[in-house]
Amino acid sequence: MASPVVPPRGMRDFLPHEKAKRERALGVIRRVYAAHGFDEIETPVVEDYDRLHSGLGGDNEKLAFNLLRRGLTRADLEAAAASDDPDSLADLGLRFDLTVPLARFYASHRAELPQVFRSVQVAPVWRAERPQKGRYRQFVQCDIDIIGEAGLLAEVELIAATLATLDALGLTGCSVRINDRRILNAMLAVFGFGEDEVAPVLITLDKLDKIGAAGVVAELRDRGVSAPAADAVEAHFAAGIGGHVPLDAEAMLAVLPSGVDRVAVDDLAAIGAALAAAGVAGSLTFDPFLVRGMGYYTGTIFEIEHPEFSFSLGGGGRYDGMIGRFVGEQVPACGFSIGFERIIDLIADEAGEEHTAVVLVHGKDVAPERLLSLKTALVSDGAARVRLERRTKNLGNLLDRAAAAGFTHFAQVSETTSSVADLELRTLA
Amino acid sequence: MASPVVPPRGMRDFLPHEKAKRERALGVIRRVYAAHGFDEIETPVVEDYDRLHSGLGGDNEKLAFNLLRRGLTRADLEAAAASDDPDSLADLGLRFDLTVPLARFYASHRAELPQVFRSVQVAPVWRAERPQKGRYRQFVQCDIDIIGEAGLLAEVELIAATLATLDALGLTGCSVRINDRRILNAMLAVFGFGEDEVAPVLITLDKLDKIGAAGVVAELRDRGVSAPAADAVEAHFAAGIGGHVPLDAEAMLAVLPSGVDRVAVDDLAAIGAALAAAGVAGSLTFDPFLVRGMGYYTGTIFEIEHPEFSFSLGGGGRYDGMIGRFVGEQVPACGFSIGFERIIDLIADEAGEEHTAVVLVHGKDVAPERLLSLKTALVSDGAARVRLERRTKNLGNLLDRAAAAGFTHFAQVSETTSSVADLELRTLA
Repeated sequence: MASPVVPPRGMRDFLPHEKAKRERALGVIRRVYAAHGFDEIETPVVEDYDRLHSGLGGDNEKLAFNLLRRGLTRADLEAAAASDDPDSLADLGLRFDLTVPLARFYASHRAELPQVFRSVQVAPVWRAERPQKGRYRQFVQCDIDIIGEAGLLAEVELIAATLATLDALGLTGCSVRINDRRILNAMLAVFGFGEDEVAPVLITLDKLDKIGAAGVVAELRDRGVSAPAADAVEAHFAAGIGGHVPLDAEAMLAVLPSGVDRVAVDDLAAIGAALAAAGVAGSLTFDPFLVRGMGYYTGTIFEIEHPEFSFSLGGGGRYDGMIGRFVGEQVPACGFSIGFERIIDLIADEAGEEHTAVVLVHGKDVAPERLLSLKTALVSDGAARVRLERRTKNLGNLLDRAAAAGFTHFAQVSETTSSVADLELRTLA
Repeated sequence: MASPVVPPRGMRDFLPHEKAKRERALGVIRRVYAAHGFDEIETPVVEDYDRLHSGLGGDNEKLAFNLLRRGLTRADLEAAAASDDPDSLADLGLRFDLTVPLARFYASHRAELPQVFRSVQVAPVWRAERPQKGRYRQFVQCDIDIIGEAGLLAEVELIAATLATLDALGLTGCSVRINDRRILNAMLAVFGFGEDEVAPVLITLDKLDKIGAAGVVAELRDRGVSAPAADAVEAHFAAGIGGHVPLDAEAMLAVLPSGVDRVAVDDLAAIGAALAAAGVAGSLTFDPFLVRGMGYYTGTIFEIEHPEFSFSLGGGGRYDGMIGRFVGEQVPACGFSIGFERIIDLIADEAGEEHTAVVLVHGKDVAPERLLSLKTALVSDGAARVRLERRTKNLGNLLDRAAAAGFTHFAQVSETTSSVADLELRTLA
């Protein structure tokens, strides 16, 4: 076959050592979130097309992979051609996030769930993005969400559980930047932006870390927003009272333009106090210009960072308007997502836990029953892994590969090896 | 919203208790297969359309869910309408089994894999079957495969690992029925069937358990196969020398028409001897009329049963022609698949392992920091799960639900509870 055989564009296979590392990390994530009272659920990888395109997914809706309806007739194809609408041929789509499925799941099972429902989802999503380094068309998301809790206990539990999980993965010392959409909206109103300007202005403010204060002001003017409001932003930045202050109400108010209502500020202060009182590791800072892209946030928003990496390891916030969409009423909800594909590259390759993994090297004439008996006996004795390997000319090479694959011991099996007692187990480097 | 909100047709959500049970079972399966030297791999859920429809998937190819190509033009739609070919609009499809992806994976990564590669895949597949009880459009398959081993060591390792896994899941006492396509083919030749009759005759023989010997003979005659051959089958059944004998060469030859070459019979006897010598639990029997549906088997075929259930828990066999298809050469391969969706219903709901899972019942005025501190302290002390629950009027009801959800203890938290030492932990029934 001439052309190379590769996975579909933008998607990846996972070789044994990669899969083992991913499963180990997923095990840690599941264990810590379970300890913190979150219940794992699973939904099908596809949802009905109309639900995926109901507006809850923002720009991601455009990136959905859609499934061709079964049993399409020529008339269906002709109608799609006439209306130039390929999507009319789709009835299902691969989910592009775990939030739309969560809203659908909640609507389907509300009666069977606790009043306050804490969910974990650790599962793949698909987006037809242009493939590029570090961006894949299939990738795992880890979401925790608390549904039905309007108070800040939700934020506090989410942040504590997320920090504990990252800690257990070896990513200690993370910090959380926090803000509140109510503060952002109030701040924009104080600057003088109109309500219809809020969405585009937030898109620009979201770039502050990348393009700096001058860049933000320039882009605002380019957008043709209200000139006095842009001037007010410029003046605010010029006063040099940037963000990243502790979660203390007075400190927060000091970096906000005067006139911002303090209710949301007090809420953030209470979140900081609760986490500190509970001894939760990780520093929390207030960042009045933290935006986060999605349009559905209604209250707190947060992002998590590690001192060694320039990118965010995850984020979330409160989105009270969304989960209840499919049940037709408002249901409070708050969520936190960690970027699994980012953190998997940052954590240690090795499990660190003690285990025995044995390679049994054998000649080709050793009888299968002898090999199977030895393998079975070693497994019964508690070996975590036993692998049979036929001896090759270069034994050193074989053992190097075994060591690289995580095996800890080896032994040679000959036609006279009759029991485990006869094996000379040696440690692999 | 008038219409009920449900998962896509034929697919399922998993509620917390279902998901927990599935993850526990998957954990057992992964652990035992790893112990037996199998390496888990993962491939994307989609494969290129052409690869999924290359003939390796048999009838399942027709059940593939196909993905609409992105960026389709009106001309594409018109061409599809003109040729009445909706599939021309698809470039990818959801996998319908794990074998086609394994063949593709092997072709992509052969150079990075050991000479004899033992793979595990535990992953969902999709088939657009008519939904019915016990049949789903998304379901998990658990496949182990040994690639590159032509000898019967492959069969022996697969059967031992599968029985050990079912055993660890609590499904002890399973038995394996075994046959060999070479024996089936030889038997059909002895009966007098032509080579072009083999495929349809096997389809009929496969129904022996369901329709009985008389039914098989009648269906063969209905099919219009060679009459003398059908007579020979009838005579064979009339002699009352049915199958299900021990894996002893003489016993096996005694239930076969004379003239069947004994090479494959001796191989089966050697498999039986090796498993017995290794003390592998589970009885093995020879069933000369075991067929298994897929066309790609070339040697041994097997099926696993439990005395309490009338259906098979899994099966497999040797398929030397298939894995090498995408590399353009013959590569020996043998696999065993267990029916995850079947066994999950048969195994115990409870983990059985000792753990502490605590529900903290609190009034609505207890401060978040107090609740978070108590929860975090219990997790640090080793609790596997801690859940906060706001007190409801009916405490008994709340505690019943908690017990049903697997919680082992509860305690009430008031505004004066200041540390874990103040909690009165009580056992839940």
